[in-house]
Amino acid sequence: MDPARAIADLRELHRLTGGPDGARRVAWTDEWERARAFLLERLEELPVVVERDAAGNIWALLEGDSEEIVAIGSHVDSVPAGGWLDGALGVFGALEVLRSLAAAGRPARTVALVDWADEEGARFGRSLVGSSAAGGSLKVDDLRSLVDKQGTAMPDALRENGIDIERMLDAHAELKRIRARAYLELHIEQGPVLETMNKPTGVVLGTFGVERHMLRFTGQAAHSGSTPIPMRRDAFLAAASASLEFREIARRHSKPGQGVVCTVGIVKTEPGIVTAVPGVCEISLDQRALDAEVLARMLADARAASETAAEANHVTVEWKPVWRIEPRPFDPTLIELCAAAVQEVTGDAPHLPSGPLHDAAEMVPHMPVVMMFAYSSNGLSHCKEEDTPEPYLLKTIEAFLRLVERALRA
Amino acid sequence: MDPARAIADLRELHRLTGGPDGARRVAWTDEWERARAFLLERLEELPVVVERDAAGNIWALLEGDSEEIVAIGSHVDSVPAGGWLDGALGVFGALEVLRSLAAAGRPARTVALVDWADEEGARFGRSLVGSSAAGGSLKVDDLRSLVDKQGTAMPDALRENGIDIERMLDAHAELKRIRARAYLELHIEQGPVLETMNKPTGVVLGTFGVERHMLRFTGQAAHSGSTPIPMRRDAFLAAASASLEFREIARRHSKPGQGVVCTVGIVKTEPGIVTAVPGVCEISLDQRALDAEVLARMLADARAASETAAEANHVTVEWKPVWRIEPRPFDPTLIELCAAAVQEVTGDAPHLPSGPLHDAAEMVPHMPVVMMFAYSSNGLSHCKEEDTPEPYLLKTIEAFLRLVERALRA
Repeated sequence: MDPARAIADLRELHRLTGGPDGARRVAWTDEWERARAFLLERLEELPVVVERDAAGNIWALLEGDSEEIVAIGSHVDSVPAGGWLDGALGVFGALEVLRSLAAAGRPARTVALVDWADEEGARFGRSLVGSSAAGGSLKVDDLRSLVDKQGTAMPDALRENGIDIERMLDAHAELKRIRARAYLELHIEQGPVLETMNKPTGVVLGTFGVERHMLRFTGQAAHSGSTPIPMRRDAFLAAASASLEFREIARRHSKPGQGVVCTVGIVKTEPGIVTAVPGVCEISLDQRALDAEVLARMLADARAASETAAEANHVTVEWKPVWRIEPRPFDPTLIELCAAAVQEVTGDAPHLPSGPLHDAAEMVPHMPVVMMFAYSSNGLSHCKEEDTPEPYLLKTIEAFLRLVERALRA
Repeated sequence: MDPARAIADLRELHRLTGGPDGARRVAWTDEWERARAFLLERLEELPVVVERDAAGNIWALLEGDSEEIVAIGSHVDSVPAGGWLDGALGVFGALEVLRSLAAAGRPARTVALVDWADEEGARFGRSLVGSSAAGGSLKVDDLRSLVDKQGTAMPDALRENGIDIERMLDAHAELKRIRARAYLELHIEQGPVLETMNKPTGVVLGTFGVERHMLRFTGQAAHSGSTPIPMRRDAFLAAASASLEFREIARRHSKPGQGVVCTVGIVKTEPGIVTAVPGVCEISLDQRALDAEVLARMLADARAASETAAEANHVTVEWKPVWRIEPRPFDPTLIELCAAAVQEVTGDAPHLPSGPLHDAAEMVPHMPVVMMFAYSSNGLSHCKEEDTPEPYLLKTIEAFLRLVERALRA
């Protein structure tokens, strides 16, 4: 095993399809095809069978003693001006694992490298396209009306890429046919947790469930000079008070190694002028947790807190759901294997949940899944500054190989 | 004295220059000239000398036994789609006072009705134009660059109205020549205080001083899913916490009948998306008080509170001044006379500060000043819904006559 080869591949990929302004491997574009062509060239050097499923996912199978499959991979596609490691680390890390296993002879189980198509949804706004088709959760009808910035419809772009949206869910039928023992994904953390601990590698507990809502506080706009404080119905101060309480809710429901989050990202006031008490304030609330019951309690607490804040400020509040997804906790046995591998290579095995979604989440209903995270410098991702210090990359790729070896034996 | 005549005048004025969509008496327009022509016609029926000063203010003098002048008035101009009483009540209330005094013979002192030009600044954005010229605080150079929505420069519009901006401050020289004993102004409250107490008439203590600033909180934008609460530098939550504290500052510095206010009207977050912790939050802060020392302490308290909130949230805060004006407290003796007159007619004399500015504020440095407020239905002004119930209007106009009589005797 030579993790440095994986890093060399990643650097060459970035030379071909990225550069100082960041990665350009946006799914369903020529740059993405070039990136995938580079992957396919590398795969040609190995004794693997390469297939593309009905959703555009690339599978490379290294046959083992058993038909049971250990799948490993991630996604080659990126956001525009993205990071060199996001997705690509998992794919080229997996490639290096294939190389190492192939060199050692026939593995105990079949190993499948998978490059999921369009994880980012950067062109059409729908993420996890390939993995959700394989996982069976994709609603094909949702894709019909999507258009990119140039006005190209998603079904047309897919057709140009050889994909018939009417047949995409065949990828799910194919997935159900295989006897999958595990799905293992290596990814850059895209957050500051490992950096804060100064640990190269982390064991991922699962992907957060999300509850996303818009809250509209309605009071009464009034003149800032002529309206005494006791007579005000200030929608912004109600929202401010609720927002601070949302953070307390996140703190209250966090446990060591099992943090949860609440975020108010959008804040809009009306009339939004310096001389008027805001009569309306609209905020977004994004709540995330790994435990579905905890997430449900957080949501109930937030509703109650918003109503308390509204009443205290003599305003009303209305909630509008925007989006939700269930938490996807990973497999406890694989989490243990992952921890053992990380411990072996780095001397420690920090556990953390994943805030962002990943293709791995789509595999959770179908097979045991675990992910491994690499340190993110400055916690940054989806930007050209994304990086992992090279010694940490080397260790993490090595830990991932150890995880795959353990999964092949387990 | 017949307050009903004043109301009839106001209704006729609104028939001529307003209607169901509100008043249209915007200064330096034909509608305003029509409104002023209506005033001048009414003045022709009285034994008064009418003059227009160099700033366009109309003065109508009813000669008295003494050369000492008691000035009474307000402004005929309105905002577009404005209220029928804003400004006009004070002018036509004063007209009715002149009628009543003229009918009773020669007053003890000369009484001057004044219709200030362009109180609202609705066309060019500079308010208190005529009264600040007479008061001497106008900076003529500030007017040179002002243009209306059609691109007409303010000096050109003034010239069409017979005003040479180079000579406007002659109005101040004229004001300094008269021996002014008092300036008395009747106005609709434009706020909810009298309505809340259900009192027709109030005694005004002075106009608020204002401290207006923009505050910029700077933290670090971060992914809402991957950034644990303890690692966040959330600029919005810092601003929210400071904003709630600003209200406490206003509460702390308020005394019965001497309320002060703090308002956060503008709130902007960056990047302002549902999936990002806000890295920047900009808010406006508008603080008002009648006592200059209290206003200074409120400002110092707000600065300290913003810094405490910034530190607690690991962000920084910068202040940028936008605008300020000193408080203009009215004359204690005239406040007493006003209270006695209001008490006599309405049985009570609530005292309140004025949040909005008024022409009266420009007279404070030059003579004793007091204002009287009429009840605002629903606290509304600067809109077509502006109103005062007729029985309350009648009482308030009568109280204003009693105030003028007392000021003539004092």
